[in-house]
Amino acid sequence: MNNLDLSNITIILNAPRYPENIGAAARCCKNMGISTLRLVKPERIDMDKIQKMATHEALDVVESMTIHDDLKAAIDDLHYLAGTTARTGRRRRPSHSPRELATFVASLDKETRIGLLFGSEKWGLKNHDLSLCSSVVTIPTSNFSSINLAQSVMILCYEIFTAKLNSPIIKRPRLATFREKEGMFHHLYDTFEKVGLFEKQTPSYWMLNARRLFNGKGLTAKDVKMVRGFLRQVTWALKNARE
Amino acid sequence: MNNLDLSNITIILNAPRYPENIGAAARCCKNMGISTLRLVKPERIDMDKIQKMATHEALDVVESMTIHDDLKAAIDDLHYLAGTTARTGRRRRPSHSPRELATFVASLDKETRIGLLFGSEKWGLKNHDLSLCSSVVTIPTSNFSSINLAQSVMILCYEIFTAKLNSPIIKRPRLATFREKEGMFHHLYDTFEKVGLFEKQTPSYWMLNARRLFNGKGLTAKDVKMVRGFLRQVTWALKNARE
Repeated sequence: MNNLDLSNITIILNAPRYPENIGAAARCCKNMGISTLRLVKPERIDMDKIQKMATHEALDVVESMTIHDDLKAAIDDLHYLAGTTARTGRRRRPSHSPRELATFVASLDKETRIGLLFGSEKWGLKNHDLSLCSSVVTIPTSNFSSINLAQSVMILCYEIFTAKLNSPIIKRPRLATFREKEGMFHHLYDTFEKVGLFEKQTPSYWMLNARRLFNGKGLTAKDVKMVRGFLRQVTWALKNARE
Repeated sequence: MNNLDLSNITIILNAPRYPENIGAAARCCKNMGISTLRLVKPERIDMDKIQKMATHEALDVVESMTIHDDLKAAIDDLHYLAGTTARTGRRRRPSHSPRELATFVASLDKETRIGLLFGSEKWGLKNHDLSLCSSVVTIPTSNFSSINLAQSVMILCYEIFTAKLNSPIIKRPRLATFREKEGMFHHLYDTFEKVGLFEKQTPSYWMLNARRLFNGKGLTAKDVKMVRGFLRQVTWALKNARE
């Protein structure tokens, strides 16, 4: 038994289909000392099935679990979000191994709130969900890459727990929350529009690229301030030039 | 996708209760490139439930799965057996982490047949089962140490798969099979009896200690030959002394 502090870890299941997997994920959380579980648009909530799979020991995780209508609302207060995907034929962002993620996460202080995001059993995470992620994680597998949802949750929780067991904590500057980053993206959108970028390419083209640029970097609160300071300056300069 | 050769790994579920866990374990095997699954005295075989959890992709693992009446019969051809236990209050043998086991297993050549043994959902492995194991593994957890059976299977398979991904193979002498070791233990029993050890302590006392002495060491085929050569010599000397 190890009383590690994993209170800064949040598990987010996006559009889960089977109540059994929700319950099994709650049990994983409890095994690995994680207490925060969030669901986004679950297909079905069957508390009997959830509680049976969670076992009596993990009922507190189930009871404090929250349900959200929208992924953004479920990650709003987090500083870092890792999304999991199976390796597929399509071209996607380069992904990390669970161990690489765990080593990084274990090095952060407990003030940094980290989300682990899992897609639905049928579809996984869609590109739009992945665009919100700070990094993407793929569990290494043999030819059959589709891992049961709760098993994926377990592997990531287990890796982070294990990494925390013997990792020193390095003090880092505070990361930006999703709220802060979304504010910055809105600000970017406005500025892109003002400078006429949307006449060259669609807004979604520019915004996807902006998200790609900023999401993977572990953006700090200070970085966000700096970017927004620059954007304000652009607006000011434009306005000045026109007057 | 990684076509690693894990054909030397066998998963053994001892007295599993729930068909769902058998199916989920089969899916884990398939995810991690393991094709051999053995059941010992399963409480119930419900092929519909097993196949549903295994998914279509892992049906070959389910179809080639074998069922045994006795643990010894299920491990007879293996060279090394790792048993999994939750950390409990009782005093037990020192246990390794899944990563320690995986590093060791990944260093063995593919001729060395390795079993991963899991106990029932309710009781885990009993001391008698553990006495057959070459080593004992405990998955690190927070305060709630009871991990779902299929989740435990996944963690061990995942660790071994990951360790194999980037491990060099070191050529080692061939380990003794369980059949060879059991032959040696029978031989030891006979010899203990002949030299009068059982008048000092019960046979089970001496045999348990003998198993403890030899099981953890990765006994090679050559070691077994040497021990049995010594035992034969003792018998010969005894006989000679009495004549």
